[in-house]
Amino acid sequence: MSAVEMGARQREISVSEFFTKNRHLLGFDNPRKALLTCVKEAVDNALDAAEEAGILPDVLVNVEVAAANGAPPPASQATRFRVTVIDNGPGIVRQQIPPIFAKLLYGSKFHRLRMSRGQQGIGISAAGMYAQLTTGKPVQITSRTGARAAAHYFEVQIDTKKNEPRIFENKKINWEHQRGTQVALEIDGRYQKGRASVDEYLEQVAIANPHVQLVYRTPEGETREYPRTIQELPPQPKEIKPHPYGIEFGILLRMLHDTKSHTLAGFLAAEFSRVSSAVSQEICGTAKLSPNAKPRSIHGADAEALYKAIQSTKIMAPPSNCISPIGEKAILHGLYKQIKGDFYTAVTRPPAVYRGNPFIIEAGLAFGGGPDQAARTAE
Amino acid sequence: MSAVEMGARQREISVSEFFTKNRHLLGFDNPRKALLTCVKEAVDNALDAAEEAGILPDVLVNVEVAAANGAPPPASQATRFRVTVIDNGPGIVRQQIPPIFAKLLYGSKFHRLRMSRGQQGIGISAAGMYAQLTTGKPVQITSRTGARAAAHYFEVQIDTKKNEPRIFENKKINWEHQRGTQVALEIDGRYQKGRASVDEYLEQVAIANPHVQLVYRTPEGETREYPRTIQELPPQPKEIKPHPYGIEFGILLRMLHDTKSHTLAGFLAAEFSRVSSAVSQEICGTAKLSPNAKPRSIHGADAEALYKAIQSTKIMAPPSNCISPIGEKAILHGLYKQIKGDFYTAVTRPPAVYRGNPFIIEAGLAFGGGPDQAARTAE
Repeated sequence: MSAVEMGARQREISVSEFFTKNRHLLGFDNPRKALLTCVKEAVDNALDAAEEAGILPDVLVNVEVAAANGAPPPASQATRFRVTVIDNGPGIVRQQIPPIFAKLLYGSKFHRLRMSRGQQGIGISAAGMYAQLTTGKPVQITSRTGARAAAHYFEVQIDTKKNEPRIFENKKINWEHQRGTQVALEIDGRYQKGRASVDEYLEQVAIANPHVQLVYRTPEGETREYPRTIQELPPQPKEIKPHPYGIEFGILLRMLHDTKSHTLAGFLAAEFSRVSSAVSQEICGTAKLSPNAKPRSIHGADAEALYKAIQSTKIMAPPSNCISPIGEKAILHGLYKQIKGDFYTAVTRPPAVYRGNPFIIEAGLAFGGGPDQAARTAE
Repeated sequence: MSAVEMGARQREISVSEFFTKNRHLLGFDNPRKALLTCVKEAVDNALDAAEEAGILPDVLVNVEVAAANGAPPPASQATRFRVTVIDNGPGIVRQQIPPIFAKLLYGSKFHRLRMSRGQQGIGISAAGMYAQLTTGKPVQITSRTGARAAAHYFEVQIDTKKNEPRIFENKKINWEHQRGTQVALEIDGRYQKGRASVDEYLEQVAIANPHVQLVYRTPEGETREYPRTIQELPPQPKEIKPHPYGIEFGILLRMLHDTKSHTLAGFLAAEFSRVSSAVSQEICGTAKLSPNAKPRSIHGADAEALYKAIQSTKIMAPPSNCISPIGEKAILHGLYKQIKGDFYTAVTRPPAVYRGNPFIIEAGLAFGGGPDQAARTAE
């Protein structure tokens, strides 16, 4: 084959086609993990949305055995499940429903520097793509933004060749809930208990989020209620600018190129966290660059000098209000509620910084077990 | 924040931005692995291109220490490298050079079912993106499609917001080689020996590809020559259709939707491997569907019946000429050349099938070591 023939075969590959082939990268390695991933993506979205809107989250998770045809098998034997997650969050405006649920790499959380469960704009659409691949069923969404608004019902799939939503159904419906979102997926899966199971994951969600009221209907028909034990939301994390210590050279170059600032000193002070006017001048001095230089004109050796100057200048650690720790009190609440023990402790460490990104380590421990717990373990 | 405000923040994320953040998914977890990945992506492309064009590959790999400024440090201390790979392949037509090297998910190998080293259309562009991120340097490419054609020189980077190439340089140059491609990348990396090192990888390439002539200039200035020991190319793998046993339900639905065939029986025979007209009729019969049904009209319960009928019909295993085994003789050649031992053996198993995709397991073993080898080990 010649270079010309080979050239003629080159073409774009859609991100949906890529992740259909490489679904293990997104947590759909096998049917057991796929079931967990679907539940997790839907619950993540429910909690993120409610918290961002300042609403104490009420979440219902329903995992049912779905019968391909005939009577459904017992949960431990079943290979097909229907996952439904309902929240009391702010709802989703009608025109955003199809891309949020049926377009990979579409979201609101990717470009901001603050903590949230979801980040990439992939999760729930990937779950829908997995449903489409294994059962051929579209994702069903109902959403309503308030008591005065209509509830909208959608059925969507991804057009994998284009990575765009295909809308099968789009109508107003009557819905019992005044506000919130419901998403339902039918997928090939396996329901198992124990480590990395849906049961364990939801129990951990309840422990780590004592401000959430969670109801879980298991595929075996049991209803588990995890009541809210703290009546207030954790503080809202704030979006921050990147910290100069964490920036990579290529990112600095892109920022210099993209900035709206007219001077180097202005750029540094405006685009980074913890760079005051004085620090900005100091960096320019160390780099032997004019504070009035045009940011776009700085590349090559100048850019490398700037990068080195940044790393060698003393700059305050980034603010940590972009993260929202659970807090020791709330962790203890979660542990008391979920786990019977003789001894409880929890710790929230002070924030630390990696590559300019603040993070916090929190840990909770429950030790021993009441007679009730011992009896449960012995079952 | 309200549903409307949240909706206004939704936006598309480019695949380049996604993989900049998630570069560990592509083998750029750390500087040591990144150096190996860059070499591997370039060598994979060189070998795939030459073999596809029916050319016995000659490949030069040059890994040099790059100095940020001042004298370069010793290789074991260096943090920046320049990787250059030159092949004698068919070259790349001018207009394809920018997207091949500076656009993720662009390639010729994704949509076909046959063996090749590269598949996804990501590797070499991801290496270029990593170079851009860590050193800010563009990828430099020289390519020439034959003695009568001009050699073209490009410098390109990815516009990560759009996942499109940005061309910094594009000119005809004089090039000593009559045909082939040269790619050069400057990256942050670490050079180590031993397991999963560049040295080990290239040695294994030489063993597994005795039809390749490989020259490797190490960052320590040593030149290692791996001469060609077999003067013929392995047989070209053939592209095949998917085998019906391996198809997932969602893919079957998409194929039914996309096919150009007018009848179900025609669709099955035309789009799948090993489905004769008789087998096709049998599948339709088992599924209780008319062989003349329009493929696009088959969905829901009919599609599920079709899917089950396919799985329960006896169909011959797929052809295995889509894979190109090295072969026992060639593996032994590679081992003799590279490894001094007392006992050599190699085996190529018959092809097997997983999810409709044929695969072959091959293994080679060298045991013991001549005095030379023992001396080397003792060093």
